[in-house]
Amino acid sequence: MPPAPARIVVDDVRPRTPGGYPAKAVVGEAVRVSADVFRDGHDILAARCRWRLAANGKWATVALHELGNDRWEAVVEPVALGRHEFVVEAWTDAYATWRHKATTKLAVGQDLEVEFEEGARLLEARAPRTTKVDRAALTEAARALRDTSAPAAARLSPALDPLVADLLAGPEGADDLTKAGPFPLWVDRERALVGAWYELFPRSHGGLAGTAERLPAIAEMGFDVVYLPPVHPIGRSHRKGRNNTTEPRAGDPGSPWAIGAAEGGHTELHPELGTLEDFARLVAAAADLGLEIALDYALQCSPDHPWVAEHPEWFHRRPDGSIAYAENPPKKYQDIYPINFWPGSEADRLALWQACKHILDVWIERGVRIFRVDNPHTKPLAFWAWLIPAVQAEHPEVIFLAEAFTRPKMMAKLAEVGFSQSYTYFTWRTASWELQTYLEELARGPAADYMRPNFWPNTPDILSGPLRDGPPAAFRQRLVLAATMAPSYGIYSGYELYENQPASPTNEEYRNSEKYEVKRRNYDDRTSLAPLITRLNGVRRRHPALQRLRSIAFHGSNNPAILAYSKHTEDRSDVVLTVVNLDSWATHDATLDLDLGLLGLPWDQPYTAHDELSGQSFPWRGRHPYVRLTADQAAHVLYLRPGP
Amino acid sequence: MPPAPARIVVDDVRPRTPGGYPAKAVVGEAVRVSADVFRDGHDILAARCRWRLAANGKWATVALHELGNDRWEAVVEPVALGRHEFVVEAWTDAYATWRHKATTKLAVGQDLEVEFEEGARLLEARAPRTTKVDRAALTEAARALRDTSAPAAARLSPALDPLVADLLAGPEGADDLTKAGPFPLWVDRERALVGAWYELFPRSHGGLAGTAERLPAIAEMGFDVVYLPPVHPIGRSHRKGRNNTTEPRAGDPGSPWAIGAAEGGHTELHPELGTLEDFARLVAAAADLGLEIALDYALQCSPDHPWVAEHPEWFHRRPDGSIAYAENPPKKYQDIYPINFWPGSEADRLALWQACKHILDVWIERGVRIFRVDNPHTKPLAFWAWLIPAVQAEHPEVIFLAEAFTRPKMMAKLAEVGFSQSYTYFTWRTASWELQTYLEELARGPAADYMRPNFWPNTPDILSGPLRDGPPAAFRQRLVLAATMAPSYGIYSGYELYENQPASPTNEEYRNSEKYEVKRRNYDDRTSLAPLITRLNGVRRRHPALQRLRSIAFHGSNNPAILAYSKHTEDRSDVVLTVVNLDSWATHDATLDLDLGLLGLPWDQPYTAHDELSGQSFPWRGRHPYVRLTADQAAHVLYLRPGP
Repeated sequence: MPPAPARIVVDDVRPRTPGGYPAKAVVGEAVRVSADVFRDGHDILAARCRWRLAANGKWATVALHELGNDRWEAVVEPVALGRHEFVVEAWTDAYATWRHKATTKLAVGQDLEVEFEEGARLLEARAPRTTKVDRAALTEAARALRDTSAPAAARLSPALDPLVADLLAGPEGADDLTKAGPFPLWVDRERALVGAWYELFPRSHGGLAGTAERLPAIAEMGFDVVYLPPVHPIGRSHRKGRNNTTEPRAGDPGSPWAIGAAEGGHTELHPELGTLEDFARLVAAAADLGLEIALDYALQCSPDHPWVAEHPEWFHRRPDGSIAYAENPPKKYQDIYPINFWPGSEADRLALWQACKHILDVWIERGVRIFRVDNPHTKPLAFWAWLIPAVQAEHPEVIFLAEAFTRPKMMAKLAEVGFSQSYTYFTWRTASWELQTYLEELARGPAADYMRPNFWPNTPDILSGPLRDGPPAAFRQRLVLAATMAPSYGIYSGYELYENQPASPTNEEYRNSEKYEVKRRNYDDRTSLAPLITRLNGVRRRHPALQRLRSIAFHGSNNPAILAYSKHTEDRSDVVLTVVNLDSWATHDATLDLDLGLLGLPWDQPYTAHDELSGQSFPWRGRHPYVRLTADQAAHVLYLRPGP
Repeated sequence: MPPAPARIVVDDVRPRTPGGYPAKAVVGEAVRVSADVFRDGHDILAARCRWRLAANGKWATVALHELGNDRWEAVVEPVALGRHEFVVEAWTDAYATWRHKATTKLAVGQDLEVEFEEGARLLEARAPRTTKVDRAALTEAARALRDTSAPAAARLSPALDPLVADLLAGPEGADDLTKAGPFPLWVDRERALVGAWYELFPRSHGGLAGTAERLPAIAEMGFDVVYLPPVHPIGRSHRKGRNNTTEPRAGDPGSPWAIGAAEGGHTELHPELGTLEDFARLVAAAADLGLEIALDYALQCSPDHPWVAEHPEWFHRRPDGSIAYAENPPKKYQDIYPINFWPGSEADRLALWQACKHILDVWIERGVRIFRVDNPHTKPLAFWAWLIPAVQAEHPEVIFLAEAFTRPKMMAKLAEVGFSQSYTYFTWRTASWELQTYLEELARGPAADYMRPNFWPNTPDILSGPLRDGPPAAFRQRLVLAATMAPSYGIYSGYELYENQPASPTNEEYRNSEKYEVKRRNYDDRTSLAPLITRLNGVRRRHPALQRLRSIAFHGSNNPAILAYSKHTEDRSDVVLTVVNLDSWATHDATLDLDLGLLGLPWDQPYTAHDELSGQSFPWRGRHPYVRLTADQAAHVLYLRPGP
């Protein structure tokens, strides 16, 4: 016969990842810790969560309360960066069980003498385990229960509870204490969850120095992160020409992702962009403006990368002795050598992986704390599962954004093994039902405990959906969706100027892609989207509701071209309803069907919908407001509050 | 740096239980083993399932194939009773990856000389690991690839594959073999999944001898299991009178669940029912008729049970020294003492649990192999998690049915820790959407890998829904639903005679409940449901589709009073469509919307719907057949086959 097993079930603890990697939160986030908690019979249970920053070992405790259907929950608010752990504990609450039984019997007039004696013994049994003062209080309470001269109701008075509730709280003395965990929780800084990103090619802005001059305008628009594609020397062998041709003309700059040349590899700067001093000045200028510089981490090499000669063992060799370039047959990418992350010997693998980490160490030393990782799904998951925790153990403030546009399970697994954020399918979700289904999945689906989306209406690789040959209204619409649906979103420069020409009707690349040539743009164009971007980023900062994903809820609309969704803070002090016209070519109207209870609004009193974009205020009443949006207007972002 | 971690993800393996207890299957069942399998990059993977009866250790192997979205599956068909285990293994299929690359290049006319050399080396690298004959074949294949005089297409001819495919199958030589498991799988006999049950109180049939005389009629109706409420001595202290009154009249027999008297406890027979010889004759008579006797396993004691005197430490004691009777305040059950499954000392617990197992050992020795367990949710899960495997380790053919009408998570957990079957909420699911939602959950929900439903339209405790004061049509409807939806179903005797009077408008008990008195019925009544029961049980036996749950699918109906659902075998050789009129008071018709693809039927050719209840055949064509059912007719059970 096995030893006595657990008497209480504590199952399905959240937040959690399927493979035991840490779930994720940010400092100050309200983390809902929940579990199934139950046992046989009718006794009343109690449960708590104990949690701590793994490194310092001081436990904090918070009680779980029952939500119904045997699900229990507590809210934990981490205050420090780094790896935390938590456990969920449950036990039979003997006092609550006794009190429930006794009060029920009292209510129907049954005799209680035996119950009072049971209660007194319960209190006395706990006394030896508590402090001196508490013991006296428990003894006093037990005496009160035995006071046969007092009426039964007085002996069960709720006044008894404050006397003993604190003394009895906690599992001390419970003989069926059951524990689940510990479960790991990684706590990032706020920027891992919330941020507005802006991507630009420094070479189109006159290098690092020119980019530094552009920063004030970017900060003015309200962005938080400026992400630069690779800034390293670009290979000359098989360099790509304009529009991805294989025959470059003299002076064609090549793709920044063909990393490495005689001037150096991933730890060096492209000489045409500037010096390390220029880079330091850029980072400092950004910091002064409240911006952060994010770099690209693209683990691949041009044929001219120093590693090719120094470490041929880190690449795939073909039988004829040549190094294999990247292929996805029949396509060939002769300007790029993929790295072989599992070279023949274990020593080679260790050296390679450390070299990859060294690249990050160097740029961290130079002040970078955010990395956008190129195509992580073509590198081993095991590599990321090692690399990211290794970096964050030394620098818990470092953030990794996964540029994985791939199959859903790989997307989720990359997030699980450590990526702080992920690109998403947002670019290809355009219809009302597509957006709704996808957001429900991101906010409440199985990966919601550890995968954080970053919504990009465009990237240098992707011009999609209504933006292709699309009107300015489409750019407004997709911008509002990205900025109000996801706590993190970003645009690639040129978006604000409505760049809308695809490479071909079947290709999602841009025509005359900036990946292969320098682009000069007139960012001061008076039709630019910059004013709307500025307003939206301001709204995002003023409204904490928009800085979280999980509260997102979709509301009814009798027109599929009009999409309505809300976000709210826990206490409903901030409620934002966004209404978007998904048709960039026509005016639409709709009668909405709002869940007023969810929004914390009265069903029978007026409330105000203040449009943060237009400045208008609408006096609304009831669950069925009417809305009308022209294509150009694109959206309302409505701050809702009770009262006229 | 940690050791090299796994290179392939093998996640979310099914069948599985949340707590690591065995999933369930029956001998001959097609068990779908599935997993998420993927890795970085574009290489082609292979995966297999290895499985064995844990006790004998001989592994069988079956390949997994990809279903899409990185989900892989294989079908395993266990042939023996008992605990099995399986593992899922995945590896990169170097040959398939090479072949895909080479054929893609061939198709666009790219040069292949290096690929051929790579292929040849791949084959040679495998040769040393195979048998002598195989090695020769691989060397031959490598030579063919190097034959520069042959055209490229010939060198890549599919003729090469048969030569090497078998030799290369399996992970030998794969350096990234990744394994998940082992996972446990408990294999029961067929009766754990499929059976028609009939419940009767032996005392209403003249005891065990009279019950034996009734068996031929029960077998004639097509039942498989005859379940008897407790057959043990009944306590005299606080015995309940008719209609659950606390003042019995002389001669009132008491509730069979008040177990234990001077004559003995759970291992004894009530003297008024007969002797152990009578019991042996009953078991033997049942076996002769293809029936099995199932007993009740109700772990509670009347105040007169021998354990109360012999083992007061197995019961709860109150401060006044008395033993606590069962209470759910303000209700009191003075005729029953609950057992304290966690007595003060570990030795007492071990002795008690062994005594509980001893009861089963005794009845197993007397030929019983099926136990219906009374209120298992009021006993510790840890007890069942120990007891059931302990019994099944000695007698893997023993089946436990959980009589748990309680909260959903407890229901699932009881199944998880070992119960073979469970009562369900079927009794309270009457509307079309309720039945559909519930069946979807049972067939494909999270507990489907280990929880097997047994549908009871009535029990001695529950007269519910349309049966309360209901017409014969309601009894037909609920019978057809139970018998065609769930592989296991049962009725409590009296059902066939339309017993429909509730104890009160708010009480689900029967008026003049058989639990407290002897009932004499005229089972030969000419209006009895027996002929319909006989037909239904015959249909269940002839149609393997009805003997499984997982294929159940609901089809469209333009009338919510008409419910249509199908079941089919894997190969679609047996397809049964049941159409039920859920309104017992009126005729209804509907136009159905059948998923013909799922049913394996042609969309543009005639097919036949043969009603196994009425004997009629309908020539149907297309997905929208018309049906019409009177209340009395209640249902079609249609065998569908292509052709006129």
